[in-house]
Amino acid sequence: MSNSSRCAACKSLRRKCPQDCVLAPYFPSNNPQRFSWVHKIFGASKITKMLQQLPVELRGEAADCMAMEAYLRVENPVYGSVGIIYQYQQQIIEVQNEIIKINGEIAVYNALLQHQQLQQHQDSFFSTDNDFNL
Amino acid sequence: MSNSSRCAACKSLRRKCPQDCVLAPYFPSNNPQRFSWVHKIFGASKITKMLQQLPVELRGEAADCMAMEAYLRVENPVYGSVGIIYQYQQQIIEVQNEIIKINGEIAVYNALLQHQQLQQHQDSFFSTDNDFNL
Repeated sequence: MSNSSRCAACKSLRRKCPQDCVLAPYFPSNNPQRFSWVHKIFGASKITKMLQQLPVELRGEAADCMAMEAYLRVENPVYGSVGIIYQYQQQIIEVQNEIIKINGEIAVYNALLQHQQLQQHQDSFFSTDNDFNL
Repeated sequence: MSNSSRCAACKSLRRKCPQDCVLAPYFPSNNPQRFSWVHKIFGASKITKMLQQLPVELRGEAADCMAMEAYLRVENPVYGSVGIIYQYQQQIIEVQNEIIKINGEIAVYNALLQHQQLQQHQDSFFSTDNDFNL
């Protein structure tokens, strides 16, 4: 990659972007913000090291997740991505409680239906009795 | 803090642990693993900087979240904490679909109950007719 088309990382770090730049495929020059998040939270050397330790076919996904993780910590410096995890855990508990509640309603419906069916059978039984009496 | 009771961070970095060590309250010497996670993923200087930028009362929570975030990335070097977020998103979708399904079941129960109630009214109507006919 020529110096005139440095990746966002090399541009930010004011260095030449080598042909085999580890960061270039995942931090294109048209999205400097994305690199600035991971640079701020993890640092360029950690990111490079973490990507290098992965097989090439997994690096894109890893870079996306690191960028999201870094963005979430920039946005929420106390909780970061764990804040979203807590939020989702809470949401799952609430939705599961809703399911328990709805299943309770279904049990009531079932009991009502059985009661009505029993009553109908009784009614038809007495109605048959009447027919016999006629 | 004396050198003999250095915090996990200062012990790992082989330095003296000053009285006003920023990391000491959150990385006690009895849990070296916790510091090793954040050290590996964020680096000591980033952690120190991120904690220093927060009010003291929020640093404990932030250190816990950073430790969890770092642990999750050590455990899952591709997805990290974002992997848990994806997993929870999927779980929320599944549970919401279950609610939609159960609500559908409730609608069926409602229809069944109404149908039975209607039938009971009709039965009692005809039964009254019979009585009149008697």
